[in-house]
Amino acid sequence: MATPLPPFSPAATDAANVRIDLGDRSYDILIGGQLLRAESFAGLPQSSKALIVTNTTVGPLYTAKLRAAIAPLHKQVLDIELPDGEQYKDWPALNQVFTRLLEEAADRKTVLYALGGGVIGDMTGFAAACYMRGVPFVQVPTTLLSQVDSSVGGKTAINHPAGKNMIGAFYQPLRVVCDLDTLDTLPQRELLAGLAEVIKYGPIADPVFFDWIDTHLDDLLARDRQALVQAVKRSCEIKAWVVGQDEKEAGLRAILNYGHTFGHAIEAGLGYGEWLHGEAVGCGMVIAADLSARLGLIDTATAERIQALVARSGLPVKGPQLGADRYLELMQVDKKAEGGEIRFVVVGPMGSARMQGAPEAMVRDVIATHTA
Amino acid sequence: MATPLPPFSPAATDAANVRIDLGDRSYDILIGGQLLRAESFAGLPQSSKALIVTNTTVGPLYTAKLRAAIAPLHKQVLDIELPDGEQYKDWPALNQVFTRLLEEAADRKTVLYALGGGVIGDMTGFAAACYMRGVPFVQVPTTLLSQVDSSVGGKTAINHPAGKNMIGAFYQPLRVVCDLDTLDTLPQRELLAGLAEVIKYGPIADPVFFDWIDTHLDDLLARDRQALVQAVKRSCEIKAWVVGQDEKEAGLRAILNYGHTFGHAIEAGLGYGEWLHGEAVGCGMVIAADLSARLGLIDTATAERIQALVARSGLPVKGPQLGADRYLELMQVDKKAEGGEIRFVVVGPMGSARMQGAPEAMVRDVIATHTA
Repeated sequence: MATPLPPFSPAATDAANVRIDLGDRSYDILIGGQLLRAESFAGLPQSSKALIVTNTTVGPLYTAKLRAAIAPLHKQVLDIELPDGEQYKDWPALNQVFTRLLEEAADRKTVLYALGGGVIGDMTGFAAACYMRGVPFVQVPTTLLSQVDSSVGGKTAINHPAGKNMIGAFYQPLRVVCDLDTLDTLPQRELLAGLAEVIKYGPIADPVFFDWIDTHLDDLLARDRQALVQAVKRSCEIKAWVVGQDEKEAGLRAILNYGHTFGHAIEAGLGYGEWLHGEAVGCGMVIAADLSARLGLIDTATAERIQALVARSGLPVKGPQLGADRYLELMQVDKKAEGGEIRFVVVGPMGSARMQGAPEAMVRDVIATHTA
Repeated sequence: MATPLPPFSPAATDAANVRIDLGDRSYDILIGGQLLRAESFAGLPQSSKALIVTNTTVGPLYTAKLRAAIAPLHKQVLDIELPDGEQYKDWPALNQVFTRLLEEAADRKTVLYALGGGVIGDMTGFAAACYMRGVPFVQVPTTLLSQVDSSVGGKTAINHPAGKNMIGAFYQPLRVVCDLDTLDTLPQRELLAGLAEVIKYGPIADPVFFDWIDTHLDDLLARDRQALVQAVKRSCEIKAWVVGQDEKEAGLRAILNYGHTFGHAIEAGLGYGEWLHGEAVGCGMVIAADLSARLGLIDTATAERIQALVARSGLPVKGPQLGADRYLELMQVDKKAEGGEIRFVVVGPMGSARMQGAPEAMVRDVIATHTA
C-alpha cells in the first residue's frame, strides 16, 4: 500500500470530523451528538426544493428535526417514507422516489437527504445518482452500521431479484452527518450488528484499533458517547484510507469484504432478513480468521482472539448448518467470485488482509467446524 | 468560450476518426464504411462474456456481423433484442438487460455493445453504468441521429412515465463505431430526422459548416459516402468541443438543445412517436431562429436561410396547432426550465448561441407564425 494509514490516536472527545479527500468530490463526515441542527448543514447548497428520503420506522422519530435543521437552505422541504427493510431495497421503492420528485417538479438542483440506515442510504444515493443524471445528496445515517460502513466509499445500489446490490452507482455525498443521538433509538441487536463492522477494521488494517476495541468493548456496548465517537471516527478513517487507494474496487478495496464471503452465504442460505447483515459478517469473520490460521497466515491464538471478541460482543459465532455443499454453491455465485473460483479475504499478519483462494477440503473443514 | 473550435476543413475521404479527449476516459469515434469487422474493435478489453443489446429491427440485420467482429475478444457473445421504439425506453426493458446479465452470471468485466439507434444507445449505456455499479460498453450507432448525437457526451437514460430521460447517468463508452453502411437500411424519414441534428451544429457553432451543408445538401440526401463522413465527423467534433468545456451540463452545453425547447413541446403535445425527435427539432430550430431574429440577435435573412435549409431537407417547418397556451405549458415543464421561467437557445450571430428568456407576447407570436 502506497500511503501508510495514519496511526490511531484515541482522545476523550464528544465530537469528531473526518475529511474524505476526493478532489472536487471531497466531503466531511461529522460525528457527534445533537447534530440534527442547522450548524451541521451550514455551507451546503441552497435550493428551492429538498427531499428527505426516510422509512416508516425512522421518519416519525427524526424527520421533523432534520426538516427544521435544513429549513434555512431550502424554500420547500418534502419528505417520503419508504417501507422499512432490505426486501424493499428494490426498483418499485426507488421509483416511488422518482415519481415523487417528478410530481413536485423537482429540478436538478434539488438536494436529497438520506435519513435512515444502510438501505435508505444506498437507495437515496442511487436515486440522487440517477435523477436527471445526478442531483446532490447528503447522508444522515441513523444506525451504527451505516455510520461506519455507508459513510465512506460512495457505493449506492438497489437489489435485483437475482442478486443483492447488482444495480447501482459510485456516487459521493456532499456531507455525512452521523448524529450519535439517533443511535439511542436503535435496537440493541442492530447496534451489535454495526459493531461487527467496527471490529472488522482491526484485523484488516489496524492492530492497535483492534486492541482498543478489545479494551473498550463494554463502553461500546453501553453506548458510551466518547467510545462511540472513537469507534465511528476510526472506522471511517480506515475505510477512507482503503477506498482512497482503490475508489472503483479494482483490488485493494476487496479487503473491506472481510467476513462477507461466508457472511453472504449465511444470509442467502437462510433467506435475507433472518440474520442481520452485521451478524452474518461477524460470524463470517470468525470463519475467515480460522481459514487464515489454517493457511498459516496468522497463529491460532490470533484467530481465537478474533472469535472471542465477536462472541463477547454478543454476536453469533456459529453459522447455520446449511451443509458445506450449499455454502460453496452460495459463495460461488457471489459477485466477488470472478470466473468461478472462490477467493476469500484472509488476515495475516494481524492488521493486514488480502484476497486469496484456499483448498476446497480446507474450506469444507472450516465450515464444518464453525456451523452448528 | 476558452478554447476556440478548430476550423472545419472538409476533405474527400471515405473514413475518419474523432478522438474525444476526457483524460482517462478518452475514446475514439470511428467513422466509415464496412466497420463491422475485427479491426474496428482491436484493443478493446477482452473478457469471458459480452452482451450485444439491440432491438427487433436492427438485430436481424447486423447482430451476426457484429458478433463475428468481436468474437476474437470474448469467449461468449450473448445478445438481447429489445422491442423497438421510444415507448420501450423504460424500466421494464432496461430490467430485461439486467435479468439477462444475471442469468448468465455476467461479471463486472462483461462488455456491453449497443447496436442500434439513440434508444438502444441510451439504454445500453445506462445499463452499463448501473450493472454492478459499472461495466465497460461500446457504442455501435446505426442511425444518423445517434451517430451525430449520442456518440459524444456520455448522456445515458431511460424515460419515466412523467418525463423523458429523467433517470440516467453520465457514462462514457470505450469506443464508438459509426459504420455508415448501416445507414443503407435506414428509412429516409429517419435519415432526414438525423440530418436535422447535423444542421443544428451550424447555427450554434460553425457558420462555415452551415454553408457546407447548404452546398452539399443533395449529396447528403443521396447518402453520398464522402459527404456523410464529413457531416458525421464535423458534428462529432463540434459536440465534443461544446461538451469538453461543460461535461456535466452546467451551462454552455445547453446550446446543444437549440430547437429542442419548441421541439419537445411538439413531441409531447402530439404524443411521443407522432413526429420523430429530429423532425420536431428541425421545426423547433426554425421557430427559435425566428425568435432570435425578433430579439435582434440575427437578421431576418439569416433566420430565413435556416428555415429554407430545413425545408429543402424535406423536414417539416410548421409545428402542429396546439395553441400557444399549450406550447407554453409544455415548455414550462421541460427540465431546462429551472424555477419556472422558460429559457430558449437563441442564435446570434450565426455560429454562436446562448440561453435566454423572451417576452411572452413575442413567444406567442412566433408560435402563431410557425404553426399550421
